[in-house]
Amino acid sequence: MAGSPRRTAGRRLQLPLLCLLLQGATAILFAVFVRYNHETDAALWHWHNHSNADNEFYFRYPSFQDVHTMIFVGFGFLMVFLQRYGFSSVGFTFLSAAFALQWSTLVQGFFHSFHRGHIHVGVERLGRLSFCSWPCWRWCCLASTSLCSLVSSGVLYRPQLEKSKHRQGSVYHSDLFAMIGTIFLWIFWPSFNSAPTTLGDGQHRSALNTYYSLTASTLSTFALSALVGRDGRLDMVHIQNAALAGGVVVGTSAEMMLTPFGALVAGFLAGTVSTLGYKFFTPTLESKLKVQDTCGVHNLHGMPGVLGALLGVLVAGLATHEAYGDGLESVFPLLAKGQRSATSQAMHQLFGLFVTLIFASVGGSLGGLLLRLPFLDAPPDSQCYEDQVYWEVPREHEDLAQGPLRAEELETRA
Amino acid sequence: MAGSPRRTAGRRLQLPLLCLLLQGATAILFAVFVRYNHETDAALWHWHNHSNADNEFYFRYPSFQDVHTMIFVGFGFLMVFLQRYGFSSVGFTFLSAAFALQWSTLVQGFFHSFHRGHIHVGVERLGRLSFCSWPCWRWCCLASTSLCSLVSSGVLYRPQLEKSKHRQGSVYHSDLFAMIGTIFLWIFWPSFNSAPTTLGDGQHRSALNTYYSLTASTLSTFALSALVGRDGRLDMVHIQNAALAGGVVVGTSAEMMLTPFGALVAGFLAGTVSTLGYKFFTPTLESKLKVQDTCGVHNLHGMPGVLGALLGVLVAGLATHEAYGDGLESVFPLLAKGQRSATSQAMHQLFGLFVTLIFASVGGSLGGLLLRLPFLDAPPDSQCYEDQVYWEVPREHEDLAQGPLRAEELETRA
Amino acid sequence: MAGSPRRTAGRRLQLPLLCLLLQGATAILFAVFVRYNHETDAALWHWHNHSNADNEFYFRYPSFQDVHTMIFVGFGFLMVFLQRYGFSSVGFTFLSAAFALQWSTLVQGFFHSFHRGHIHVGVERLGRLSFCSWPCWRWCCLASTSLCSLVSSGVLYRPQLEKSKHRQGSVYHSDLFAMIGTIFLWIFWPSFNSAPTTLGDGQHRSALNTYYSLTASTLSTFALSALVGRDGRLDMVHIQNAALAGGVVVGTSAEMMLTPFGALVAGFLAGTVSTLGYKFFTPTLESKLKVQDTCGVHNLHGMPGVLGALLGVLVAGLATHEAYGDGLESVFPLLAKGQRSATSQAMHQLFGLFVTLIFASVGGSLGGLLLRLPFLDAPPDSQCYEDQVYWEVPREHEDLAQGPLRAEELETRA
Repeated sequence: MAGSPRRTAGRRLQLPLLCLLLQGATAILFAVFVRYNHETDAALWHWHNHSNADNEFYFRYPSFQDVHTMIFVGFGFLMVFLQRYGFSSVGFTFLSAAFALQWSTLVQGFFHSFHRGHIHVGVERLGRLSFCSWPCWRWCCLASTSLCSLVSSGVLYRPQLEKSKHRQGSVYHSDLFAMIGTIFLWIFWPSFNSAPTTLGDGQHRSALNTYYSLTASTLSTFALSALVGRDGRLDMVHIQNAALAGGVVVGTSAEMMLTPFGALVAGFLAGTVSTLGYKFFTPTLESKLKVQDTCGVHNLHGMPGVLGALLGVLVAGLATHEAYGDGLESVFPLLAKGQRSATSQAMHQLFGLFVTLIFASVGGSLGGLLLRLPFLDAPPDSQCYEDQVYWEVPREHEDLAQGPLRAEELETRA
Repeated sequence: MAGSPRRTAGRRLQLPLLCLLLQGATAILFAVFVRYNHETDAALWHWHNHSNADNEFYFRYPSFQDVHTMIFVGFGFLMVFLQRYGFSSVGFTFLSAAFALQWSTLVQGFFHSFHRGHIHVGVERLGRLSFCSWPCWRWCCLASTSLCSLVSSGVLYRPQLEKSKHRQGSVYHSDLFAMIGTIFLWIFWPSFNSAPTTLGDGQHRSALNTYYSLTASTLSTFALSALVGRDGRLDMVHIQNAALAGGVVVGTSAEMMLTPFGALVAGFLAGTVSTLGYKFFTPTLESKLKVQDTCGVHNLHGMPGVLGALLGVLVAGLATHEAYGDGLESVFPLLAKGQRSATSQAMHQLFGLFVTLIFASVGGSLGGLLLRLPFLDAPPDSQCYEDQVYWEVPREHEDLAQGPLRAEELETRA
Repeated sequence: MAGSPRRTAGRRLQLPLLCLLLQGATAILFAVFVRYNHETDAALWHWHNHSNADNEFYFRYPSFQDVHTMIFVGFGFLMVFLQRYGFSSVGFTFLSAAFALQWSTLVQGFFHSFHRGHIHVGVERLGRLSFCSWPCWRWCCLASTSLCSLVSSGVLYRPQLEKSKHRQGSVYHSDLFAMIGTIFLWIFWPSFNSAPTTLGDGQHRSALNTYYSLTASTLSTFALSALVGRDGRLDMVHIQNAALAGGVVVGTSAEMMLTPFGALVAGFLAGTVSTLGYKFFTPTLESKLKVQDTCGVHNLHGMPGVLGALLGVLVAGLATHEAYGDGLESVFPLLAKGQRSATSQAMHQLFGLFVTLIFASVGGSLGGLLLRLPFLDAPPDSQCYEDQVYWEVPREHEDLAQGPLRAEELETRA
């Protein structure tokens, strides 16, 4: 019923083997390379005769927790709007975030805290989980985009879902669950943008700019959603996603002297672009280019991300010693040392954007091809976005799923 | 079906225009007045040669985030108990809180951080979002009361909702969503009460007193709810609301030397008064005075708020140099300077309470009249508490809504 | 329908009387014994001429809030998977946690901050809510186990619940609510393990070790759940519970120099043991020993807890002056003073484990007997796990409940 015996046997081993293999690999690398840093190692910390209150833990841990809440709760529940994909959305976000925490310890560690053959870890390194420097951050964006594309492919099944009257009853609550995701993402995006900056004014400014940008993208999203909606009605998809574009758009420039007014303008534009993208661009993508973008990666991360990179270029190009004072050192170290001009810094960032876009296109295509490998045993299109492919679901829920599957089979046969 | 073409066209433009107008106004005011303060401005911060760990960000940001979680998650989900009003409850709380963050920057800024023609902002100012000094705080109470009254008017529709068997299935989960709101409000109320105080013992004491008061109001709410309930059963409305009265009641006095025992007594009384209000006072209000108070503003904020103001009067009147030591300076500056006696401080606060009550009555009436203006295009009573007036809702959800509407129309015609 | 008149009258008074009695007792004890400590008392704090930023509030409050989120949201929603027990799960967790905050102030206070006839309280003492020293911690485990056994007894009713097709529709969303519980528990378990440690490297290390252990238990839970599941499908019960075993297993050893690799291994084993427990051990317990363990206390807290105690014995036995440096003082004070050898410390902990297990068995049995006292008026088996015994539930929800009750009565009569 849920697949041929061979497929079933394959699936039984696939996820366990993948998990065990990945966990085994990171465990060995941890044993060989990972050590406590001078803030977490009992001997090192006490040798330096610090005051315990100076431990960076007290300055990093609250933001660190916010970022985890954002990832696990925010991203986990954001996609629960797909009514028969709730278990998968929450569960697989949970699994991949847990692994990403281990993996990023290794990757970030090799680049940033590798001394004398060891990676030295503490909460502040983990805080750099999903970005830290420019190229790294872009790579992660790319990775998340690929991941999301995977999920997106499932949209094929959605039209059939909508035929089924039985299931509609729960959609309303699914959207409320998704709003839990949106709101936690909104609240903690300032921590996300400010977590990896150096302590002091830069972190403070990042949080503040992100807040103002998010408030403006929320207002523009509500305005545009009602403006383009049927009978002036708001669309939950816009609110759940485009309202967050203000966080994305200041990702590069939040630490800079963007000014509160600049943050409002950036956020407002991002919310507008993202809402219009959901309304007009996504349907075009689907009908003309046969690209399916269920979770709106393009509209939430793509366009606002590019907009944000251009904003970063602009604000970097305008950076002066007067505006930053001695703080120039921590935001643009090469400018402060006189090794680059503001214009040259801006050009470097612009070049970085192009490199990122190329990487993202190539990486996305490779990722897409990889997922088509028969080895990976992707579920047939008709079972995409179906929790019961991977999860034990309550019996009646399962029964409901059979209806449309059968109906579809019939259609296929006819 | 959802209104005449003219009404629809009006609504299509109403929300967008309101959002754009408000956003435009605040953006201009931001451009002219708002600047980073010395903790967020790169040049100012580094000019003073601070240690980065001294940035007030590290002392304010955790409470600041708690207050936002409370507002967006807590208040957003608290009202989802109205089963067909979930999108509106979460969505409009989201929208208005986003705007309030911008607006309060301006209002609070003009009163508290306006120097040399500019408002200077940092996280600690935003933390004062919803109150900061006595008169301001009261004004905000008034504003939130008016806002809530708006929502309350929708209750007209509720009796009809209850006729519909179709919808009952989801109420159970709606109440669980509302409990998410309650619990986040409960957990973060201590941050809410302690966020605007000066650093040090006052902030510590506010959080502690609020905790103890909340625990006592929770116990008294469960006790009273079972005592007055049918067959001794607990009522979700009481638990969702009255359990929070302990946070409201110590709003004024949490920073004072209330003592842990005093906090328990205050919380216990507040929970009792609030639960009895929901059980006996709200129905009387509705049947006798035709006042509808769906979200129980009166029972959660009204009576416990007045009780809390009186408690503040009492504790201020008992303040001595012996009990506060040099801490008198930060809690009652005028007392410490010898410009006021404790009794005179208490009288000033009592007078403040009367002024507040008068403002609230006048303001509430004006707000109510304002909402009746035809310009604002309020939905007809029969569509109140209906998400589909403002939101695209899942199709079956929409169909269900038509049933009782039609039934009601029939009744009206008959 | 809901019980005989006498039973109803008894229930009407039972909960109110219990709440009032407990609240009255703690209020009197608060009045007599509880005072602000030197961080929360205005006079004491200002007498010492501290810098306000030194107030321990700023180092303890974020973790303190995390632990409360974990308890109220995490444990509250974890058990909502029982579809007709959501109100009770969230509501009674709310009530008992509120009381526990008061009670633990007294109990912890008598043991740890009782000077000159008074208990001195501040946020840092409350943070020690549920554990602090070794014997205390174990007692609390015992208490929570007993509490959970109480709830577990309700499982008797579950087989009948599953007969009812009417209710299945909501199970899916009930599981999503439960995932809110799981994820908040996961995110904040590092705060839970690190909250009671001394400031500095020990707290930092506890949080870090707990994180790594949780990531590994998540991976092993997914791996094992798919491996033992029907058609390789994941089981929500495993994900909701066993993924958290990594937090339990390092409860004793997180502060020690466990190493990141050690944390991964510990978490992996805990997730494996716990998942296998749910799959194979729980059914055996039920069918052979007639012990019902609905919320899987044994698998989540029992086996991983014992495993964790043994791990603590091992890591303590391996403790050297070389590995801990001067930090030995704060982790193992008796070792640092030379009053104990590492082996002797390990033996003491092993002995502590045995004492705890004996206490838990005796305490659990006594608790079980206590709950059978007619005075406590436990609901009949057929009404266990039924919210409507204690709560007003939406009418249709209530009607559905009558179906199976009647069916069962018929079966009993036949």
